[in-house]
Amino acid sequence: MRLPFVSIAAMAVALAAGSLLRADDGYRLWLRYDRVADESLRATYAAAFTEIALPAPTRPGFSLGSIEAARDELTTGLKGLLGVDLSTVSQPTRDGALLLGTAVRSPELAGLVSEADLRAASEEGYVIRPVIFAGKRCVLVLGNRDVGVLYGAFALLRHVQLHEPIAGLNLVSAPRIQRRLLNHWDNLNGFVERGYAGQSLWRWFELPDIVSPRYRDYARACASIGVNGTVLTNVNANALVLTPAYLQKVAALANVFRPYGIRVYLTARFSAPVEIGGLKTADPLDPAVKQWWTDKVAEIYRIIPGFGGFLVKANSEGQPGPQAYGRNHADGANMLADALVPYGGIVMWRAFVYDNNVPADRHTQGFSEFQPLDGQFRSNAIVQVKNGAIDFMPREPFHPLFGAMPQTPLALELQITQEYLGQSMQLAFLGPLFEEVLDADTFRPNAGSTIAKIVDGSVDLHGISVIAGVANIGDDRNWTGHPLAQANWYAYGRLAWDHQLTSAQIANEWTRLTFGNDSAVVQPITSMLLESHEAVVNYSMPLGLHHIMAEGHHYGPGPWVDQAGRADWTSVYYHRADANGVGFDRTKSGSNALAQYAPEIQNLWGNPATTPDNLLLWFHHLPWDYRMKSGRPLWDEIALHYQSGVDTVRTWQKAWATLNGKMDDERFTHVKQLLARQEHDARVWRDACLLYFQQFSKKPLPAGVEPPEHPLDFYKAQQIHFAPGHPGAH
Amino acid sequence: MRLPFVSIAAMAVALAAGSLLRADDGYRLWLRYDRVADESLRATYAAAFTEIALPAPTRPGFSLGSIEAARDELTTGLKGLLGVDLSTVSQPTRDGALLLGTAVRSPELAGLVSEADLRAASEEGYVIRPVIFAGKRCVLVLGNRDVGVLYGAFALLRHVQLHEPIAGLNLVSAPRIQRRLLNHWDNLNGFVERGYAGQSLWRWFELPDIVSPRYRDYARACASIGVNGTVLTNVNANALVLTPAYLQKVAALANVFRPYGIRVYLTARFSAPVEIGGLKTADPLDPAVKQWWTDKVAEIYRIIPGFGGFLVKANSEGQPGPQAYGRNHADGANMLADALVPYGGIVMWRAFVYDNNVPADRHTQGFSEFQPLDGQFRSNAIVQVKNGAIDFMPREPFHPLFGAMPQTPLALELQITQEYLGQSMQLAFLGPLFEEVLDADTFRPNAGSTIAKIVDGSVDLHGISVIAGVANIGDDRNWTGHPLAQANWYAYGRLAWDHQLTSAQIANEWTRLTFGNDSAVVQPITSMLLESHEAVVNYSMPLGLHHIMAEGHHYGPGPWVDQAGRADWTSVYYHRADANGVGFDRTKSGSNALAQYAPEIQNLWGNPATTPDNLLLWFHHLPWDYRMKSGRPLWDEIALHYQSGVDTVRTWQKAWATLNGKMDDERFTHVKQLLARQEHDARVWRDACLLYFQQFSKKPLPAGVEPPEHPLDFYKAQQIHFAPGHPGAH
Repeated sequence: MRLPFVSIAAMAVALAAGSLLRADDGYRLWLRYDRVADESLRATYAAAFTEIALPAPTRPGFSLGSIEAARDELTTGLKGLLGVDLSTVSQPTRDGALLLGTAVRSPELAGLVSEADLRAASEEGYVIRPVIFAGKRCVLVLGNRDVGVLYGAFALLRHVQLHEPIAGLNLVSAPRIQRRLLNHWDNLNGFVERGYAGQSLWRWFELPDIVSPRYRDYARACASIGVNGTVLTNVNANALVLTPAYLQKVAALANVFRPYGIRVYLTARFSAPVEIGGLKTADPLDPAVKQWWTDKVAEIYRIIPGFGGFLVKANSEGQPGPQAYGRNHADGANMLADALVPYGGIVMWRAFVYDNNVPADRHTQGFSEFQPLDGQFRSNAIVQVKNGAIDFMPREPFHPLFGAMPQTPLALELQITQEYLGQSMQLAFLGPLFEEVLDADTFRPNAGSTIAKIVDGSVDLHGISVIAGVANIGDDRNWTGHPLAQANWYAYGRLAWDHQLTSAQIANEWTRLTFGNDSAVVQPITSMLLESHEAVVNYSMPLGLHHIMAEGHHYGPGPWVDQAGRADWTSVYYHRADANGVGFDRTKSGSNALAQYAPEIQNLWGNPATTPDNLLLWFHHLPWDYRMKSGRPLWDEIALHYQSGVDTVRTWQKAWATLNGKMDDERFTHVKQLLARQEHDARVWRDACLLYFQQFSKKPLPAGVEPPEHPLDFYKAQQIHFAPGHPGAH
Repeated sequence: MRLPFVSIAAMAVALAAGSLLRADDGYRLWLRYDRVADESLRATYAAAFTEIALPAPTRPGFSLGSIEAARDELTTGLKGLLGVDLSTVSQPTRDGALLLGTAVRSPELAGLVSEADLRAASEEGYVIRPVIFAGKRCVLVLGNRDVGVLYGAFALLRHVQLHEPIAGLNLVSAPRIQRRLLNHWDNLNGFVERGYAGQSLWRWFELPDIVSPRYRDYARACASIGVNGTVLTNVNANALVLTPAYLQKVAALANVFRPYGIRVYLTARFSAPVEIGGLKTADPLDPAVKQWWTDKVAEIYRIIPGFGGFLVKANSEGQPGPQAYGRNHADGANMLADALVPYGGIVMWRAFVYDNNVPADRHTQGFSEFQPLDGQFRSNAIVQVKNGAIDFMPREPFHPLFGAMPQTPLALELQITQEYLGQSMQLAFLGPLFEEVLDADTFRPNAGSTIAKIVDGSVDLHGISVIAGVANIGDDRNWTGHPLAQANWYAYGRLAWDHQLTSAQIANEWTRLTFGNDSAVVQPITSMLLESHEAVVNYSMPLGLHHIMAEGHHYGPGPWVDQAGRADWTSVYYHRADANGVGFDRTKSGSNALAQYAPEIQNLWGNPATTPDNLLLWFHHLPWDYRMKSGRPLWDEIALHYQSGVDTVRTWQKAWATLNGKMDDERFTHVKQLLARQEHDARVWRDACLLYFQQFSKKPLPAGVEPPEHPLDFYKAQQIHFAPGHPGAH
């Protein structure tokens, strides 16, 4: 009788103690610096890195600059990875010194590499390679500026974390886009609009007195992937952040971020001169208004040296803007740009505008308002354009403004937070989505004019380039809610640095940094990541369907939603399902939004036969029995896509189960629970949408599609209360 | 030139690496289980604890019960403290076995201790002592019930953490109050009313699918101090939590808490039968309403075995209640009590009521409404009374209901969260406040009838006893925002278990558990803790002043507030400062709230000369030159109290500075920053209040009081936006 009890008890102990001792809460992100398990490899690295040499004095005293940050990171990282304590010296004392410095302040280091390399390293990049210096074999980490050394340090640590060979080490890299920003849609009360990972990281009530160590870890994570700017506040802006008390708080954050090469930006509420300035107007052409902004910007730069500039959402969704005074977007943007230009600041003016009173297809509105203004913006005014014209849909054709404003630098705004992609409950790795957007060919001015090349300035030779990602992070311990959603932050940063990287490469890299280099772990997770965006599209809005979300949040399905504040907030407006078929006709016979694209695109997408399947119902209303490229009728194809999404999630559940014991229990269990939720949610999407559309198609589900679990009314009656991140949640 | 640079760099490395490596975020609370540094002591413990023996089978399979939880905690704790891996066996195999079991299931263990000890251990307590069993020297951890073993395990671990001698180990303890509850004022959207440490711990949107490991750590922390119940939801209640979908979420939490002896309770919105039940009325005497609650309770117990019961705020501050139907509080409470009684559930009905339309001194309203109902409540209906009659003031005389309802069990409601005591920005250890309340003598029925004895049932011989603390915890990584505020959670639990403990004892215990046993650390922190509540009273509302907070939040001073929704939401209503003096006359010549107390109290507090200084202005309006016991005029005494509060905070800053290097940098720096903020805030309180009152006293500040930094208008113009925890923050 006793024996089985003992063994069960022993097992339970192992499990329980394991769960307490082997917990990993994911806080460290991809900067884990766990000890290299392979002792021979570890010894190789340890021989290669024996001390840190800083031949040039950096800054007086203790003030932390980028080189000190680089040195700290290398010290901490190599301590973790190799178990060695590296001392810092001014000159190499032995072989294996890590030699840190900049070309500007250490000409003797610059002389160790070619001018071509230095040029390739550009303003922010780095050159890493073996050199002989002061008679010692060293590894040089050289930048043209201090921040390049920091980026180089992170690159070198990544190299070691990935167990890459040290022999022949030769890393030269520089970012292709100048300003690589995170946009935080964080309100001053701590609420994050479209935030699914807790509250804002910025504890405004505590600042500037309490400076959380987390701010530095945020900066480290950003710098490690090359993010060099952060817009702290929501585009639905509050003018309070521009008052002196708040600027002091902002300054406390900026001071932490500065050594990590990160500039702080704020959203500027257009009506701030009225709300906090006591003026009667915010008219951008009014001299008092101009003066107010000029003074305000001067005040900001006094308090926050190196301030980056403003992001503005104006005349959209109720936000104030220049149109209230009969002015246009360029008038508004230029006024702010003029105030900022003496300090090197920029203004990013969002093109995501739509008007309650304009009956046109929302798809067309941004283009209609902005394209005619091309050439009217100041050189430090950037128009920031979402990847698509509707709103961060699961899949969306690229925004027609790209390529259509050659005289204006356009910033690409991507969404890292998964507003319409399962939020932080569902796995949706966005690398492939970002890649798809960056690689999209606008054919303007000609074939090969991809969005990436328009944004990085190489097509139109702009002197300024910006990319922005709406952050998916909050104060959840693991930053992103879903442990695997950290990969989206990572992928955004890596692609912002180098849009020529592939999402497969990034997925592999992130997985190894985050879960270790064991291929039995790396392979399944990488596959899951790479399949995931398409799987979510399949079980929610396949074949170009879009915006068929439930009311009051953007989490679950609501294809039946037909009442809302305005027609284009309903689902039926977007899918247009009826007895004749489904889809939004945006060709000449419909809204003709397609006319805003280049002729090559119009030709391709104007015809269902040459429209890619994954955008088909975005541009065309087609009968249920329309014959697809697969040979199947449209209805069957829709149904099979929904089923396929569910099936894919189930394959992940099986794959994830094989990882039990191959990682800490905490992350394993968390993702396991999340995948079960995702499988459930995917079935709800499938059943709700197919039952709804079946009312119109009047066709049976094809073979291979599971019958719905409940009748349609069951799904319509489901209510989700207090979905995180939705303004209504507060 | 190089030498100084190198040494500065080396120091910077040490600092920076230290801050990364030696960080301690406080998540572990007082359950740190750090290795005992003294090797000889460690060896003594290690010899005393060699294995864990569970002679009686507990539960089949893996289901985690309290004994398994005890075993897990001991395994983990002793692993950390001693560096030993204890195996679990069914019978002791060697000396040093920790023998866990209950009297009921292991009569052979019960036989090892006296019947008197077993009686002393009572329902939930434990007996820990050395025994010989199966021929081995063992340490017995015995309870009458499983949970007693768990409490014993925590007591034993605390003993080791405190480096107490193992020789002569003999611990017998049982709680004096049966139900020791935390009340969470957590809304379903995650907002915590009066919460200053982040959002709610309960992630309703994720539940029941995602079960955070933090729930278990919450349960461990609660169990370690004897808390055995948790009200998950705000007293300003939402009926949604009683719907099936939410009950499933509650059940997921209850399943985690159950092995830790923690019952789950919910707040019941009185109008739930209308809001979610589809009834036309919530009249407690309506048969359909009674049936609805009867059915609802049955449903709850089906889903949540061991459910504890309901907490209700009714007919107060806009909450619905029985008075809407012409019924009284007893009618409402009894209806719920009847529904709960078959399952052993209880209802806690709050006496914190005040009515917009009653012009009486709010101090009198709870008594007026409830005292006449004494004897009308069911035996499982408890009236829950705040420690004072106004509202968790920094210092408040005890509530006159205590002792005035001998036929009704009264629950004491304390506030652990520091609503009016600096929230999570300021150090205010509440042990002395709790002690003061528990030890307060009501003189009802006679001298020595303290609140502690009324609440624990020993005065009036009630069969049920309840204490409740409004929780100060949220999802901040360190649970309580201020690292030292963890002591308030701890102190509440320890006093709820045993109200005979002193706050000095608890402060010492908590400090040693949390910062180690080094007296150079323990002494200064313990002193700070013990001085802190009085210091905050002194710099904010000394000598019985109360409720002179700024508008819109309860953080800073606002003695000038004279406009609000109602008179008793203003400050001038409470302090009544004028040319003649200051203070609220609650004697016969005033509101006569004093008449609600026992004659002995009336005699004492009715006369300024015999009223304790610290309650003087609570009960009396006195001239500015009133001669205090100190011989000083009242004005001088007020001013010196304000200054004294500021001075005390400054002594803490000095004391804290001596701890640099004696603990991790993270907690050191965090508290250092917080103390600087507190010193600033204390000055603001002092200056704002003295400048305001000086308008009436027209007297100079006495010697020793610093002149105010700014004029009064400066302080009146200060605005605090988005103060956490205030409903207006959302």
